[in-house]
Amino acid sequence: MRGLWLENNQLELRTDLPVPEPAEGEALIRVLRAGICNTDLELLKGYYPYRGILGHEFVGRVVQGANPWQGQRVVGEINAACGQCYYCRRHQPTHCDRRTVLGIVNRQGAFADYLTLPIANLHPVPEHLSTQTATFTEPLAAALEIQEQVTIHPQDRVLVVGEGKLGQLVAQTLALTGCQLLVVGRHPEKLANLAARNIATGLADAVGDRTFDIAVECTGNPEGFEQARRALRPRGTLVLKSTYAGQLTLDASALVVDEITLIGSRCGPFAKALDLLAKAAVDVSPLIQATYPLTQGLEAFALAQQRGSQKVLLAMEDLQT
Amino acid sequence: MRGLWLENNQLELRTDLPVPEPAEGEALIRVLRAGICNTDLELLKGYYPYRGILGHEFVGRVVQGANPWQGQRVVGEINAACGQCYYCRRHQPTHCDRRTVLGIVNRQGAFADYLTLPIANLHPVPEHLSTQTATFTEPLAAALEIQEQVTIHPQDRVLVVGEGKLGQLVAQTLALTGCQLLVVGRHPEKLANLAARNIATGLADAVGDRTFDIAVECTGNPEGFEQARRALRPRGTLVLKSTYAGQLTLDASALVVDEITLIGSRCGPFAKALDLLAKAAVDVSPLIQATYPLTQGLEAFALAQQRGSQKVLLAMEDLQT
Repeated sequence: MRGLWLENNQLELRTDLPVPEPAEGEALIRVLRAGICNTDLELLKGYYPYRGILGHEFVGRVVQGANPWQGQRVVGEINAACGQCYYCRRHQPTHCDRRTVLGIVNRQGAFADYLTLPIANLHPVPEHLSTQTATFTEPLAAALEIQEQVTIHPQDRVLVVGEGKLGQLVAQTLALTGCQLLVVGRHPEKLANLAARNIATGLADAVGDRTFDIAVECTGNPEGFEQARRALRPRGTLVLKSTYAGQLTLDASALVVDEITLIGSRCGPFAKALDLLAKAAVDVSPLIQATYPLTQGLEAFALAQQRGSQKVLLAMEDLQT
Repeated sequence: MRGLWLENNQLELRTDLPVPEPAEGEALIRVLRAGICNTDLELLKGYYPYRGILGHEFVGRVVQGANPWQGQRVVGEINAACGQCYYCRRHQPTHCDRRTVLGIVNRQGAFADYLTLPIANLHPVPEHLSTQTATFTEPLAAALEIQEQVTIHPQDRVLVVGEGKLGQLVAQTLALTGCQLLVVGRHPEKLANLAARNIATGLADAVGDRTFDIAVECTGNPEGFEQARRALRPRGTLVLKSTYAGQLTLDASALVVDEITLIGSRCGPFAKALDLLAKAAVDVSPLIQATYPLTQGLEAFALAQQRGSQKVLLAMEDLQT
């Protein structure tokens, strides 16, 4: 089969890859569409050692799996858990000690014709939800993880720093809480997407110090962190939603004096994400930069790597799927 | 009056200081005893610009104040709040925008014959509680702040890193929750104080990675932070209880991947601290290194600055108080 193979920080379109064999309890899935995420770009830069097929945001169709999954259009949670360790027993499979992670840790990813995942990881895509829209389930779930970790009240002043792909999804999910939301970034054209949904936006430098209860850092760079930190009131909460290249340096004494809470946030609830997409409560269409066939995967990556790019999708069959 | 005056990183015993004038709503307090805290040592090193009388842990007697305070033996909360700002209205006076802080920010401190504080900040010391023991109210309240911020369950594995003055108070308060507690440090003789109270202790290097639900960092140095961080399970909570000299560098991506929560923690509930001291639920006696008369304040500081020193107290009248 075809697939985008990462090895030694080089991505290659291969056509000689074997179709994976589903293990006990797993399904074989024909990938329909997949999205390129910043984590893929970081893996390409060597953020984490990985060798194999990239990709973890996808929609596919089950071609081999127990009933009633056969033929079902699905999305899939990316952490394949052991079901037996401390974290699995505490219902925290995303932190399973022995997990593999689709296209990230020891499991071949979604930028290919086929992938395998445990059936326990699959969620059916509602009939009327398009494959293109459903491809955003995984990043939207990650955005929703914030609300699993932090209770957000309508009176809370909430700042989102960064208006990239993740920042926009985070902003749209936070807006649904009715909180007092502001999104800041550096690209007026992207902020306009949010303004069109009646979300308050501003340029990055215009945020007052010590005025927000909650700040969500979606840039993954130290400047974004510093801005989110400064914007927080004492006893405020800073959610870290991006991975950072390299180390972060901070003033820990200020965290103590202001009793700030910092929370790292990763994978989230797929069912809630699918529900929001099905209800059209979140609009992902302005986030799509382009869709490429898998055979043009390297061009798709080149576009995704351009500064300011939005979501670039890969279509495994024809573009009309 | 006499007082230990800090100016340009130099501490001086002065005898020419004016007795402070209590403002409206304030009491004039004759200081009986006071404790030297690491924050005092940091101020001496220039951690925060302050000029004036040091000291914020004290017991005193009200010599000028409305009834029924007149003649009362008291401890006092150190943040003098405005009562009107955003934080005061939200009952967070320790974060008041316009606060002064006894011996730390714009308010003359306790290493002197007299101090003033708002009557609202005062707590009567129970009759049978000794002045010496009650001097630990402020740091014990700071230790108890952890439990105001984090719910600790009996099944939680909790690590305290650092067995200094604060670490020992933190450990004793956490032990009262019935959690599975381990305290690690570098001084076997200090750990022995805790072992004598049936608290599990160990040497700093003996902690396994990823095995604790909660870690409390009480050393204020980067090595202590790193050890607390590594000891945490995914979804664990790291409480920062010390101020840090300089910047702290950390792996923010690891916080995101493991969904770690970092919480800064400062001043805490005086009433609960007094209650524990009055019930003898916490034993501060092994923490006392020495008590000096105020006139030997500089010697007291020299001892407090020695590596491994425990609490050094200052007595303002005679040592039999």
